[in-house]
Amino acid sequence: MKPEKQMTKKLEPHHFRMRTYYADTDAAGAIFHTRYLEFCERARWELFVDRGVDLRDFTRQGNHFAITRVAANFHQLGRLGEELQIETDLLSCRRASLTFKQSIYGIRPEEDKRLLCEAEFKIAYLNDKLKPQRMPQAITEVLQTTG
Amino acid sequence: MKPEKQMTKKLEPHHFRMRTYYADTDAAGAIFHTRYLEFCERARWELFVDRGVDLRDFTRQGNHFAITRVAANFHQLGRLGEELQIETDLLSCRRASLTFKQSIYGIRPEEDKRLLCEAEFKIAYLNDKLKPQRMPQAITEVLQTTG
Amino acid sequence: MKPEKQMTKKLEPHHFRMRTYYADTDAAGAIFHTRYLEFCERARWELFVDRGVDLRDFTRQGNHFAITRVAANFHQLGRLGEELQIETDLLSCRRASLTFKQSIYGIRPEEDKRLLCEAEFKIAYLNDKLKPQRMPQAITEVLQTTG
Amino acid sequence: MKPEKQMTKKLEPHHFRMRTYYADTDAAGAIFHTRYLEFCERARWELFVDRGVDLRDFTRQGNHFAITRVAANFHQLGRLGEELQIETDLLSCRRASLTFKQSIYGIRPEEDKRLLCEAEFKIAYLNDKLKPQRMPQAITEVLQTTG
Repeated sequence: MKPEKQMTKKLEPHHFRMRTYYADTDAAGAIFHTRYLEFCERARWELFVDRGVDLRDFTRQGNHFAITRVAANFHQLGRLGEELQIETDLLSCRRASLTFKQSIYGIRPEEDKRLLCEAEFKIAYLNDKLKPQRMPQAITEVLQTTG
Repeated sequence: MKPEKQMTKKLEPHHFRMRTYYADTDAAGAIFHTRYLEFCERARWELFVDRGVDLRDFTRQGNHFAITRVAANFHQLGRLGEELQIETDLLSCRRASLTFKQSIYGIRPEEDKRLLCEAEFKIAYLNDKLKPQRMPQAITEVLQTTG
Repeated sequence: MKPEKQMTKKLEPHHFRMRTYYADTDAAGAIFHTRYLEFCERARWELFVDRGVDLRDFTRQGNHFAITRVAANFHQLGRLGEELQIETDLLSCRRASLTFKQSIYGIRPEEDKRLLCEAEFKIAYLNDKLKPQRMPQAITEVLQTTG
Repeated sequence: MKPEKQMTKKLEPHHFRMRTYYADTDAAGAIFHTRYLEFCERARWELFVDRGVDLRDFTRQGNHFAITRVAANFHQLGRLGEELQIETDLLSCRRASLTFKQSIYGIRPEEDKRLLCEAEFKIAYLNDKLKPQRMPQAITEVLQTTG
């Protein structure tokens, strides 16, 4: 009976702050939808940096991480110069894949943050023949301990 | 009993050809995942051009089309310099939204094309107050007739 | 005789830190050249934020800032996951244009930083008829005082 | 005395057509400046395709082409959905570098094309130790014969 241990094994959501610029916008006057997915990549990378993992250590000799699935809902339009907070949660950690849920909020001084986008990313770890292989232990370990 | 009419109302899939370049790739040596979603925007735009609709006619006075949902599966890695074919189908056409399914294939001379990415896009038509409004009739009409 | 006043009018170089991610790289394994120019936009925007200027205040009613010239030299290849420092200097401040010089360095712990890119950007302020107009005083003032 | 031969050795300008989409625009309502430089990469790649050269043949074993200098003037603002024509000229062809001049025009039915951007790109050919090496003969040959 280890309910407490289970709880401590839950990943604390990771938070990443950034701002949007003209390069992120489009002629409709808002953030272009694919840019949110790029922002999510930044947040996932920073999650690993903050936990002491350098993802480049796992991309030698043709090994690499590949996004195999994205599902994103865009709730409100993000704006030029808006400060964003990205919350990253681990949804599942399987033998050869990770699934993250990421929520992007617009931060407004003196007002509630507003939800702009929620996205899920499934990520596989491939060898140099593009075959899925076991996720590196160093990766799964930092994801299964609290921040 | 109008089965024939129904059939003629089915959108013929639209095909768009393009090539990838360095700007579309990443350090893993393949096409960066968000780029496929940009390619899909190109294909949807060209679908309307080919059917005589200029989408800019519907984006005056603050009206615009907004992507509200994306779901994409990435099956194989696309490569630098690869010729792509994007097949665009209409999945549904509702009062205030359209849903497209788009499949991206890598074209190989003398070999079968290979499926790189399948993606669905839900698109809403918003007014200048960001409220959903009825999709313009000119848009829905060209989608419901054969090519 | 106001040499001291002249000196205090020199802009202190502004420094901005960021990291590169897969989205910034290409299949040659390095940072794609146009991405450096996007990074420079981020650094210029943050310069104004740090000095209390919100550039969005000057882009209402069709007014906007337009890049009219870029000249960039790429000295060394930037890498995935590299931490960058962007140094931004004002080269000239004319009636209807600003010219910035920006240097992008790769930061290496326990080693000298390495120069990746030097770029100059000339920026005009246009009205809603796309005619150059006088740069807003709030902009020029913060550029001509020390940080 | 071979003036005629000299003339026939001049590269015929190469022309490439494309259209802009939302992904290419920014919140100022026009094409984002770095996108023109991406468009130029497309046009250079297509120049070689049209002359029977596959640039990927020269990027094995760590060899690659690197942009070492860009200088661009932005004359008019390009627009969403605008059809562009990119004219590519060879300015110089040295032992270890090429310099191209590229002009981007907006095409308007029944009106003169308008010049949006002129850019020069200097490109080096690097070996796997990032040292400049002799430009491949297949590259220089197709550049020095007429189209």
